[in-house]
This record gives sequence, C-alpha cells and structure tokens, in this order.
Amino acid sequence: MGKDAVIILSGGMDSTTMLYEFHDEIALAITFDYGSLQNKREQKFADMHCKKLGIKHIIIPLEFMGKYFKSSLLMSPDDIPEGRYDDENMRSTVVPFRNGIMLAVACGMAESNGLKRVMMANHAGDHAIYPDCRPEFVAAMSAAMSAGTYENVELCAPYTGLSKTDIALRGKQLGINYAETYSCYKGGEVHCGKCGTCQERREALQAAGIDDKTPYQS
Amino acid sequence: MGKDAVIILSGGMDSTTMLYEFHDEIALAITFDYGSLQNKREQKFADMHCKKLGIKHIIIPLEFMGKYFKSSLLMSPDDIPEGRYDDENMRSTVVPFRNGIMLAVACGMAESNGLKRVMMANHAGDHAIYPDCRPEFVAAMSAAMSAGTYENVELCAPYTGLSKTDIALRGKQLGINYAETYSCYKGGEVHCGKCGTCQERREALQAAGIDDKTPYQS
Repeated sequence: MGKDAVIILSGGMDSTTMLYEFHDEIALAITFDYGSLQNKREQKFADMHCKKLGIKHIIIPLEFMGKYFKSSLLMSPDDIPEGRYDDENMRSTVVPFRNGIMLAVACGMAESNGLKRVMMANHAGDHAIYPDCRPEFVAAMSAAMSAGTYENVELCAPYTGLSKTDIALRGKQLGINYAETYSCYKGGEVHCGKCGTCQERREALQAAGIDDKTPYQS
Repeated sequence: MGKDAVIILSGGMDSTTMLYEFHDEIALAITFDYGSLQNKREQKFADMHCKKLGIKHIIIPLEFMGKYFKSSLLMSPDDIPEGRYDDENMRSTVVPFRNGIMLAVACGMAESNGLKRVMMANHAGDHAIYPDCRPEFVAAMSAAMSAGTYENVELCAPYTGLSKTDIALRGKQLGINYAETYSCYKGGEVHCGKCGTCQERREALQAAGIDDKTPYQS
C-alpha cells in the first residue's frame, strides 16, 4: 500500500498516535482551526510531528464555527466544565457535528488530490458524550463519503473500539513523547489538569505505565 | 409543523424554487461561497428572495476550496466546458464532495440553533455527473447526520427524483420569476447561454412553458 491517506490531525494524544502508527500510509495531514482555545496549542505539536515524519501538513480555518456554533469549547476558559470526560456535564463542550464537517472537508481534499482514504482518531471513550464519534456515525459517514465521490473515498477509524489507555499503550510501543501533545480544553499554556480531557489524558497515561512529563497546573 | 428547517440556498433555479415551495417551514437559509465565479452572482438573488420571504440568510465562506480543491468551476471562465449538462466533459466542473461539505456544515448549524432538518435541492438531472447528488449519497448522508447529532437532524431532499423541468413547473405554479435566479458556470454578468448549466436551464424553462426573460449572450 502506498501513501494514499489523509489524516485529520489535531495534535492531541489520539491523532498523534495514529500519525506515528500509520505514517507510511499517510500523504497529507489536515489540522482544522475552528476557533477553540486549544486549537493553537495543538497546532504547534501537529506541525512539529509532521515535520519530523516528512508528512505534508496544512491548516484549514473554519471561522464560521466560532461565529455561529454553540459550544463551551468555543468560549472562554471559565466556560469549560470540570469533571470526568464522560460526564453528562461535558456535553456543553460538544461542537455540533464537528467530525462530520472535518470528515467531509477531508474527503473533498482526498478526492481533489487522488487519495483514497481519510483517517480519524475517534475512540471508545468519546462515545458516551459525542454522537459523531460513535460506530453508527462512522459507518454511515463512510457510506456517504464512498457514495459521494468518484474514487469511493473510504473512512478509516481504526481506534473506534479502543480505549484511551489502549491508544497510550500503542504510543508507548512507538516511543511517542506525549509531553509533545496537547489536550486541555481550557487552552492555557500549561494543561489545567482538571478539565475532562486533562483527567482523561492523565488517567490513560498512568494506566499505560507511561511516565507523564507533561506539566499540569494542579 | 413550525419553522424547523435550514435550507442550502445557492440562488439558482432549484434551491430558489425550494425556498418558495417550503418557505413556511424554513427558519434559516445558508449560502456557501466556495470561491466559484458564479457564487457572487447567485448570492445577490439568494439574499433578495430571503428578504422578500422574511427568512434569515447568512453567507458562509469556504475559502479552502478555492485554495486547495481541483475543479474547473473554481478557475477562469475559459476553463468551463461547453456542452450538455449531463455530458462526461462536464465532469471537470465537479467540486469534490461539495454537497457533503455543505450538508455537514448546515447540519452543525441546525444542531446549534435547535433546528431539526436540512433541505437541499439536488435533482435527478444531477445524478449522471455528480456523485454527491445521487439517492445513495442522500440516504447515507442522512443516516450520518441523524447518527452524529443529539437531535437526529434529518436531511430532506424532496427534489431528488424530479427533473429540472418538473422543478420549473413547480416554480411556474408558485409564480417565481426565474430571471431573478442565476445559473451560469462562467459567472459573467449576463448568462453565457452555452455552458452546461445555461443549456439545462433554458431547456427546462422552455419545456415548462415559461416565457424566459433571462438575457443570454448567445
């Protein structure tokens, strides 16, 4: 298999792991900037990893999300709830149909560039709160992308059934330094350590037996 | 049924007809500006019809398409092929997965605004060349939108099985002045009359027995 895939790369733990695991199949990495506080922090790492692996990387701004979409993720750090990642109160952080939008754009980019697949790093821990991370969504969106393109672009989401800890274990084998990834929803220079994604990140790294070098505020 | 729908409105014949036919169900019209020559011409009419009907109208720019996507529609007027709309040579005008992208954004907008449906005016004459206008795509994308949102946003594409002439006949009944719509792929101030969409437009209006007041260059 040649390099025939586009990856949606945030610069967080999951998509960075996927980038390293499948780097010899990936021709293009796309980072979307939808105006969240964490976007800019993540992008720096996304770019760094692509440079290291020699993968073309572009950033696509989606300003309309910040302007029109309702989500605490697009507001100020004080609007981000604290609590466990799978708690119902994390629901305010949902950016409506974000994965649908990113996949649709990545699908058009794939078809425009003669690439056959789009990779996304959703995982099982996302399913409780985020409808556009669930297997039913992945299957339907995959069918839509295939039917809607000449080259039947395929959606690959190989982490759909994995836990965050499973992903961290893969990253450990690959030798990824997770201090060079960013997760915090509050978007500060240093991870807050308390928001849902910070908690989820810390627990996964600990469960995978990784010595977490990430600085946390608390 | 209250006003619970978002419509994707270009300002061409098909979506303008849909806007008038379903205006009492439509809360929001979205026009996408993906950088084609015809976009600016269409927008003027889209805005005019929304004002007339009292429907909120926004324009969402998708600049990345002009920058990264391959399509003759995003190039100069000389790159637009002449010929019949369903000819194979019209394939160069395809903007890869455009409907997928517009639907995904409209779906996120619907979910953000408490709306339940997204309307799109694809029709049977599009099927030959445009994969993201076909019934298989519509069904799969509808399933993806429903699975990927809390409110199970629905995709409505009631013209999928209609011909352009069928649509023109509906518009005739509704009293639409089609000179106040824009179709030409070349994007000039006056319709060229020869490109695929101009030919398709003229034939449909004639077949529907409409006295076409649109000026054409030839």
